[in-house]
Amino acid sequence: MNRPSGRAADQLRPIRITRHYTKHAEGSVLVEFGDTKVICTVSAEAGVPRFLKGQGQGWLTAEYGMLPRSTGERNAREASRGKQGGRTLEIQRLIGRSLRAALDLTKLGENTLYIDCDVIQADGGTRTASITGATVALIDALAVLKKRGSLKGNPLKQMVAAVSVGIYQGVPVLDLDYLEDSAAETDLNVVMTDAGGFIEVQGTAEGEPFRPAELNAMLELAQQGMQELFELQRAALAD
Amino acid sequence: MNRPSGRAADQLRPIRITRHYTKHAEGSVLVEFGDTKVICTVSAEAGVPRFLKGQGQGWLTAEYGMLPRSTGERNAREASRGKQGGRTLEIQRLIGRSLRAALDLTKLGENTLYIDCDVIQADGGTRTASITGATVALIDALAVLKKRGSLKGNPLKQMVAAVSVGIYQGVPVLDLDYLEDSAAETDLNVVMTDAGGFIEVQGTAEGEPFRPAELNAMLELAQQGMQELFELQRAALAD
Amino acid sequence: MNRPSGRAADQLRPIRITRHYTKHAEGSVLVEFGDTKVICTVSAEAGVPRFLKGQGQGWLTAEYGMLPRSTGERNAREASRGKQGGRTLEIQRLIGRSLRAALDLTKLGENTLYIDCDVIQADGGTRTASITGATVALIDALAVLKKRGSLKGNPLKQMVAAVSVGIYQGVPVLDLDYLEDSAAETDLNVVMTDAGGFIEVQGTAEGEPFRPAELNAMLELAQQGMQELFELQRAALAD
Amino acid sequence: MNRPSGRAADQLRPIRITRHYTKHAEGSVLVEFGDTKVICTVSAEAGVPRFLKGQGQGWLTAEYGMLPRSTGERNAREASRGKQGGRTLEIQRLIGRSLRAALDLTKLGENTLYIDCDVIQADGGTRTASITGATVALIDALAVLKKRGSLKGNPLKQMVAAVSVGIYQGVPVLDLDYLEDSAAETDLNVVMTDAGGFIEVQGTAEGEPFRPAELNAMLELAQQGMQELFELQRAALAD
Amino acid sequence: MNRPSGRAADQLRPIRITRHYTKHAEGSVLVEFGDTKVICTVSAEAGVPRFLKGQGQGWLTAEYGMLPRSTGERNAREASRGKQGGRTLEIQRLIGRSLRAALDLTKLGENTLYIDCDVIQADGGTRTASITGATVALIDALAVLKKRGSLKGNPLKQMVAAVSVGIYQGVPVLDLDYLEDSAAETDLNVVMTDAGGFIEVQGTAEGEPFRPAELNAMLELAQQGMQELFELQRAALAD
Amino acid sequence: MNRPSGRAADQLRPIRITRHYTKHAEGSVLVEFGDTKVICTVSAEAGVPRFLKGQGQGWLTAEYGMLPRSTGERNAREASRGKQGGRTLEIQRLIGRSLRAALDLTKLGENTLYIDCDVIQADGGTRTASITGATVALIDALAVLKKRGSLKGNPLKQMVAAVSVGIYQGVPVLDLDYLEDSAAETDLNVVMTDAGGFIEVQGTAEGEPFRPAELNAMLELAQQGMQELFELQRAALAD
Repeated sequence: MNRPSGRAADQLRPIRITRHYTKHAEGSVLVEFGDTKVICTVSAEAGVPRFLKGQGQGWLTAEYGMLPRSTGERNAREASRGKQGGRTLEIQRLIGRSLRAALDLTKLGENTLYIDCDVIQADGGTRTASITGATVALIDALAVLKKRGSLKGNPLKQMVAAVSVGIYQGVPVLDLDYLEDSAAETDLNVVMTDAGGFIEVQGTAEGEPFRPAELNAMLELAQQGMQELFELQRAALAD
Repeated sequence: MNRPSGRAADQLRPIRITRHYTKHAEGSVLVEFGDTKVICTVSAEAGVPRFLKGQGQGWLTAEYGMLPRSTGERNAREASRGKQGGRTLEIQRLIGRSLRAALDLTKLGENTLYIDCDVIQADGGTRTASITGATVALIDALAVLKKRGSLKGNPLKQMVAAVSVGIYQGVPVLDLDYLEDSAAETDLNVVMTDAGGFIEVQGTAEGEPFRPAELNAMLELAQQGMQELFELQRAALAD
Repeated sequence: MNRPSGRAADQLRPIRITRHYTKHAEGSVLVEFGDTKVICTVSAEAGVPRFLKGQGQGWLTAEYGMLPRSTGERNAREASRGKQGGRTLEIQRLIGRSLRAALDLTKLGENTLYIDCDVIQADGGTRTASITGATVALIDALAVLKKRGSLKGNPLKQMVAAVSVGIYQGVPVLDLDYLEDSAAETDLNVVMTDAGGFIEVQGTAEGEPFRPAELNAMLELAQQGMQELFELQRAALAD
Repeated sequence: MNRPSGRAADQLRPIRITRHYTKHAEGSVLVEFGDTKVICTVSAEAGVPRFLKGQGQGWLTAEYGMLPRSTGERNAREASRGKQGGRTLEIQRLIGRSLRAALDLTKLGENTLYIDCDVIQADGGTRTASITGATVALIDALAVLKKRGSLKGNPLKQMVAAVSVGIYQGVPVLDLDYLEDSAAETDLNVVMTDAGGFIEVQGTAEGEPFRPAELNAMLELAQQGMQELFELQRAALAD
Repeated sequence: MNRPSGRAADQLRPIRITRHYTKHAEGSVLVEFGDTKVICTVSAEAGVPRFLKGQGQGWLTAEYGMLPRSTGERNAREASRGKQGGRTLEIQRLIGRSLRAALDLTKLGENTLYIDCDVIQADGGTRTASITGATVALIDALAVLKKRGSLKGNPLKQMVAAVSVGIYQGVPVLDLDYLEDSAAETDLNVVMTDAGGFIEVQGTAEGEPFRPAELNAMLELAQQGMQELFELQRAALAD
Repeated sequence: MNRPSGRAADQLRPIRITRHYTKHAEGSVLVEFGDTKVICTVSAEAGVPRFLKGQGQGWLTAEYGMLPRSTGERNAREASRGKQGGRTLEIQRLIGRSLRAALDLTKLGENTLYIDCDVIQADGGTRTASITGATVALIDALAVLKKRGSLKGNPLKQMVAAVSVGIYQGVPVLDLDYLEDSAAETDLNVVMTDAGGFIEVQGTAEGEPFRPAELNAMLELAQQGMQELFELQRAALAD
């Protein structure tokens, strides 16, 4: 098997995490998984949504968008079409659940964190890049909040990262780019913690159904790639 | 471990599939997974969406809704709020992908099938009941289309069914009802074909992340329950 | 004159009122006027809309919907089109006004009752079936509220029911089904109380205008049919 | 009984119909029922909606709006709220049905007529004023279309007018203004043809249900007032 | 150069300002710039938007609309299309900014003034007519509020008026009507105070860019026409 | 006078124009006016909007957006609010008109160019940066289209650039950043061609009205700054 990208089956794309990418947000990261580039910002606001009022805990929610020409063909701008599409809602719900898993919300105080993941260039894996990058931006934002004295303790429970795996020409491969994703028979997105637990597993057969053995192989490959991602996050945070 | 429902860990709820439930649709099924009740209709219309015009193949798309008081607390009607929520869109996209996996669309002719899954009473597992019931309604609809002479061959490739599994008090359990789902640590929805392949695997950690071993145990339990579901579908179709 | 349904001019369709049809709502009825089937639920919530705050009285409001394939041709789902159509709004306003006429809102306490009428199969007369069925569900809901101790007295002032009448081939006929309605020259919907008063009278000439004498004949026929409807409601409530 | 307006029970408000009120529309009328003032325009466009294509007939549709401060309290502008309310849709559907009853659409050619009724000052009876005024604007527009040679014959079948009647302090009264309407027990809107047929009858009990005898008395009063309205329309057209 | 209207280059259209045009609003003016006719109402409501709460000052906001057939071709009604277009929003923001410039909002008390400018006939210059007419309606409304005792002082700082200028066949001309506007190379809208200051200057090259000298000539012409407009406003207020 | 930025009154911020910033679009530029950063892409699609069909010419349209946390406080995402705000529509209409002025649309062939300006960091002057950067992206896109053979000639008529000027503490200053803009008495945006003509002039008094002499001084300052902008564009294109 030869991947279109020429990578080994278990090889991630070159990954770069640039912190403090824009100046206003409490946390701001440009994350690159190869040619996929996403700006992840974390914005803190005092207060919580109505359903959490008076419970002394915080909240985290996420939104996702793509610039209209981040893709090969221009996509209509969701703001001008007047609604977010199903794929967008699905991805931002996934990002929100994943990032909430990193936190102990009771230590966040009555604050709301908004994660915004905006894709400026898409080449496959925008949701996994978003989760991986937003985790770093989240840690930066928590440091800012701590300095401001608005935290009750350290809300960070664990690191979170995400990666896709797929079956390409019968072989499990890691971190699919757009070309590989389009040709893959199966696409599996995995979100994990640095302690080795699964947060989310979402697999879809694009063509033929996948066999239990293939699912297992993909899950193992994802777990392996995840170790590298956590190291890359730690390295970025150490800068 | 005692499940709130008193069922064994690997026991499905009582499942009923009532065909020809309403009179206008090409296929119409009331599916009941215990107290969860969903009306699944299949409507055939000549023609295909623009992106498929002239390719000589058909299309299948799905929509999902809940009656406002199908749930314990009334939910605002999506039609009057002016948009479908993220959960709704996510579920109807899942139903559409799953049912398309049952078909060879090139044998459908230039027809579009609309799957409508409307929950009239919710008690957990509405999406898995929807997929399981809609498959039966789909087969009924194909029979109607065949009689009308609008098919090119037999588009049915395989049967499709779905079930949820979870970790309840540390033990993997099959087909969670609402009470169990609310208390479960993990929720995994699995869509499979009767040939034993996976169409979709969607697992979410509600509280603690789940371990690889737990994931494996849940996947095995799902595969086992799936056999019963296919038998129930076949029995309903044999009536 | 031979009605397509073979019924006598003053004959209602077989009418069935099934109480406790779904389990969550305070009141829940499946009402059938022949092949027309509507689920009517009544949901009670503490509190009133802003314009009634602090006046010590309650409120009742209604919503109406049709499942997309409740009709001969599939209708686009209003939730996915992003708005309720004019016909829907007109009908739900009619249901709301009619059901409010059954109540003394000052005895309801500061509670809001939501009537949801969802058509699962349509064959003419969905609005009159909705009003007739929702009245029974309302009475069930009031009994639940009374048990909970949230009422100030008995808010029920009177029973309400509704029926359609029309001119078919020059002859006034009662309770039109879809075929008859499509062929009728005039369609008149009448909502009355069991004390013999009119709540609503809505007549529309479909083709030729109708004469005063025809209007009188239709009104008399409606009043006559109404007696049967009140008996059917009472019988259902006596079960 | 003393009406707040000081009028006799069977007395219309002063009614004025000003033709050619604005310059662009094919028909343009300012209609005044006392202090109620509505601009009614008729716009002709070549072509028909999709559901009528190729049938060689025309179409007529209506829209209704109120300027935000046409009323005692300012109402939010529907264009900025992003949707038309239920009352608006109900009224514009009524206007459309009523005006279509004036026409033989097969003689209109493949043209669409848009009726726009915009209330610039409201004091009760805006829908009946709209229908009465729009009929005159329609006749003017047909004359313009005839000159342009775009008609197949004379599409005008009959004149149409509308008036409200009510029960005020137990007495049937004609053409209620806002104060009277607010205090009336019953409100009945009647649309008729100049040949004495009913197009629409819409009666609503505001407080107590109304008796059959009251309904009859109101209908008679409406028929009587209608004669004056047709004379006023004819006089305006004769100018 | 011969203007289509036959006017001199520096000649305004006949301008009429009719106060108390409708009866409900605190201020209500019909303003006519030739065939352009706009109803301007001012509605006062107690309270201010959230962002101004507790600051002891008032607010003024504006909305603009066109009746569907105020123009040569019918425009779709914004309320039924479900949103206001970009041009509408642009104009109503301009009207709001301009009218706020007339006021010292700290003397308005915690009141909100809604300016509604509704075009009933359009022939060019609807935004400048709106601003000029709304200023008169605003002064009438302030007098009403003063009588009611809801003002802290006199909020009126200065009069405001607006006019368009353009380059038609190479010559700067004042107050363009629709025909002239369509043929003009440049269109400049100017809002000024009666003390000779500019509030807004908005110039757009329709075809060729305009030269600095042309801009100066247009600005001078606008200033000159503005003197007449202030006199016309004062004359209307003196009636 | 000391500008908060420490710049001379006639000094632009450091301006950077990075071409080929993202890989999919026909033209893609990151433009920076100091800390204001905007991604400008140009996307070409075959075909034109309906109103231009069959006229053998092309079209250009623009859209504008801000990432939610491009600003000091997070702004709600327009896609999730379901509509673009008035400011957004105003700016994108301005960008569209300005860029169309650069082109001879008859030489574009039946192609549509979409300009997307997305602000990733805002610090004042986002609309002027957008126009200045999009012009460079447009020229790159035309080169791509020429290579593809889809142009009829060279559609570029002239270069276009934009800059803001204002009155800060009584002194006219060039290219205001956010702090200066917030404190300025007047804000004037100017769009010009490299041949020295004005495309747009939009001035707004934020506090006190501005005098004719101030307007002239600002216009001169803008013209002067514009020369530098055209040189920067040319330098970027020469790379």
